[in-house]
Parts: sequence; C-alpha cells; structure tokens
Amino acid sequence: MKISFIGAGNVAWHLAQAFEKANHSIVEIYSRDKKNAQKLTEKLYNATPTDRLDFSHSKSELFIISVPDDAIAQVVSELKCPKNSILVHTAGSKNLSVLEPLPFTRKGVFYPLQTFSKGKPIDFKKIPICIEAENETVEKILQKLAFTICDNVCFIESEDRKTLHLAAVFACNFTNHFMHISKNILEKDGLNFNMIKPLIEETISKALSKGPENAQTGPAIRKDTNTINSHIEKLSFNVDWQNLYVLLSKDIQSI
Amino acid sequence: MKISFIGAGNVAWHLAQAFEKANHSIVEIYSRDKKNAQKLTEKLYNATPTDRLDFSHSKSELFIISVPDDAIAQVVSELKCPKNSILVHTAGSKNLSVLEPLPFTRKGVFYPLQTFSKGKPIDFKKIPICIEAENETVEKILQKLAFTICDNVCFIESEDRKTLHLAAVFACNFTNHFMHISKNILEKDGLNFNMIKPLIEETISKALSKGPENAQTGPAIRKDTNTINSHIEKLSFNVDWQNLYVLLSKDIQSI
Repeated sequence: MKISFIGAGNVAWHLAQAFEKANHSIVEIYSRDKKNAQKLTEKLYNATPTDRLDFSHSKSELFIISVPDDAIAQVVSELKCPKNSILVHTAGSKNLSVLEPLPFTRKGVFYPLQTFSKGKPIDFKKIPICIEAENETVEKILQKLAFTICDNVCFIESEDRKTLHLAAVFACNFTNHFMHISKNILEKDGLNFNMIKPLIEETISKALSKGPENAQTGPAIRKDTNTINSHIEKLSFNVDWQNLYVLLSKDIQSI
Repeated sequence: MKISFIGAGNVAWHLAQAFEKANHSIVEIYSRDKKNAQKLTEKLYNATPTDRLDFSHSKSELFIISVPDDAIAQVVSELKCPKNSILVHTAGSKNLSVLEPLPFTRKGVFYPLQTFSKGKPIDFKKIPICIEAENETVEKILQKLAFTICDNVCFIESEDRKTLHLAAVFACNFTNHFMHISKNILEKDGLNFNMIKPLIEETISKALSKGPENAQTGPAIRKDTNTINSHIEKLSFNVDWQNLYVLLSKDIQSI
C-alpha cells in the first residue's frame, strides 16, 4: 500500500519503518515541525517530509494519524485527504468517531498495543494490533495490512479499546511509577536500584506465567501487621506514599 | 559446611538444594509439620526431617531459620542449638536482634533478595545475597558461604535491609497487585489478560534499562485530562480503584 503518516513520534517512527520492510511504500511524513518529519524520512526510502496538512493531491491510499491523543481533534479539523482514501488513528483512548469531521474518507483505527521509544527496536511480530473500521471492506484492508507486519491481529471496538487502555494504565504506567517510588526510597538511603532488578524481573515473570492472582507475596497478603506498620513509619518522609501504601495493602487483602 | 534448616518453605526449598549442589552437606530440615520437612529431605542426599526444635546434639555448624517473618520470634524462643554454632535468619523485614534470645550462638542474617516458588527453578548466580553479622569472623564465614552459590554478595545492615524490603513491596507486591486489577478490568469486559502481556514485558524492560524516571508514558504524565476522566468514569464499578487511579495520576504528575 501507499501510506502517509500524520505525526512523526514514537509510533510513526517504528510503524513506518516496519511497513517499509514489509514492502509498503511510505509517501509523506507530516509533523508540525518539519525537522521532526525529516528525521524520520531520513530512515525511509523515498518519503517526503511536510508541515502542511493538505494531502488532497497525495498518492497515498492510507493516512495514519499518530499524534498525541489530545491533538487528534485539532489535526482532523485541518486535515485534507483524497476522496475515498482510508484514514485511521493509532490511539488507544480515542473513539473511531473522532475522525467523523472528514466525511469523504473511509475510517478506521489501527492500534498497536505496545509502548514505543525511538531508541529501542521493536519486534512487531509479537505485538497485538487492534483494528476497528466503519465497515467490513475497510476492516479487511486493515487486517490484511496488519498481517504483513505482525501475527496477532484483533478486532476491538472503541469501548473495548478504552478498557484495554485503562487496564494498560494500571499494568504499565502505574507499575512504572511504583518502580520510580521504589528507586527513590532506595536512593534516599544510599542504596542502588540495581539490587532489586532481579527481584522485579522474577516477580513479573511469575505474574505473567501463573497469573498475578496466584503470585502475590509480601506483608499485605500475609497480614503481617508488624512489618506493615514499620514500613508505614519508614515512609513518614512522604505522606502521599504512606497513603498509597495503606490503600494498596488494604486492597491486596480485600481482593 | 554442615547446615540445618529451621523451616521447609520456599526459601529453604531452593537454598538447601543450592547448597548441596555446591558441596555443602544438609544435616536436618525442621518443619512444624514433619511431612513438609520430609518433602524437602526427599530432594536431598542425606538430610533428616524433624518436627523438634532441640538441636543441642546436632552436627551442624550453621542453622538457617527460614520460617515466615512473624514466626521467627516464636521459633527462636523454643530453639536449642549447639554452643558456638552460627544462627542466621533469611527475613528481609527482621532485625538481627530478633535472634538475641539464643546467647550461646553466633548470629547473622542471610537474606537472598528474590521471590521463590517451589515449582519454579531459580538461578542463584544472579541473586544478590544480603549479609549481616554480629562480628567480622561470622561475616566472613557467611560471605564465603554465599559466594559458593552466587556472584553478588552485599553487606547490608538491618535498617538498610528494611529499606530494601520496603522498596521491594512497591516494586514487586504493589506492581503485582496492579496487574491483578488490570486483569480484573479486562475480564469484566470479556477481554483476555494475554493481550497486554507484550506491553507489560516491554514496559518493565524499559523501566529497568533506562530507569523508571525516564520511562513513564500514559495519560497522567501527558496531563491528558479527557482520558483520565473517562478512565475514572469507567472505574465506577469499584470506588477503591477509582480512588487509587486518582492518587496515582496525581503522584505521577507531582514527582
């Protein structure tokens, strides 16, 4: 397929290169700041960088909006695409309907359920790509496209995609934050975060293999009140973390 | 060394076998329920199972208490060890001083910083073993012993061990709980936890390689109020999780 990207962030960065490897051709990369678009086109065979949202005369059949979730509405309000081209966004938290202001396109969602960073290579093969489309024809085109880069394609409607996104916030953003808190607690006492890395790796491996509901350990699940109280006391330097510790311990005991 | 274990749980299970592989000899395994001790001795060359805490005539030079943290004090109050034998516990949350009621032994702590399950093999080589001892002679004996099964031996005093343990509660117990919540959220809407496993693996890998402080993504750090509000609304079936969502989002934005 001939594909253009609206956005040159982490998702576009990896997706554009994966599509090119799978013999699709990337036509344009848009970014508000043309320099960002250019950084990505330099990684591609023959794509043109641009900072204009008028694609009326583009040769692309598919336009992929991969800007920050909150910027989609603004981009859509300015975007011009060829009649009958396919327009998708890659956002976990946004409805298909956010694309409605562009009536002459065929619409869908192409949501790779993964976290991307520019510096870190990604193997798309194992990543679930969640597809939604306004009709079956578009659904099939997007499905076929997804299968050219990955093995795991699912059809997920907007409401379920929101559920996935919410679940990911708990399992990823909040767990990352707890590792951040953990690192701060260690460094405050001159200890190195590296020390607990093997423990974290094993914890996650256990949770994923036997299920988190069978993998819980620690003072809360043991109802070890002495340890819980001594931890709360040790957290006296940060009332918010004390509060989180109490709530989490209670929730672990009640689930 | 000649070693006996007081306790036949997950830690004793792995540690006893690792010591035997490193050519130490395991003499006795104690458990309140002798059958549990027997299950472990069956895995060992020539150890005796017992449900009695009188080891006055034992040939062991080292006694390792690996019972649940809250049971240590009780065990210590009943335990009899040969004069001058070394007595250690393996608990992250307990002071060295919990062993004080046994005045004729030499005391220490031997804390492998890892989570153990009987069914899951463990490679001790990579696990940090945290040592504390009442004097340098004992410290050296424990250090030498630890190096026979692992490459990473650290000297950590009781207060720092408590810090490590608290940090591990955040980075492991609480993250496991959030994966549990995440799984519940998905299953409530008929979605499978497997879908987000690649995302979890990548999140943890990123947090460990570039540091959690550089790896945060998601609606909270982006201050994406629309998404945050729609997530809170979606959590209306569980007020505790709503509350956690709000607190975590606030803390991510403030750190």
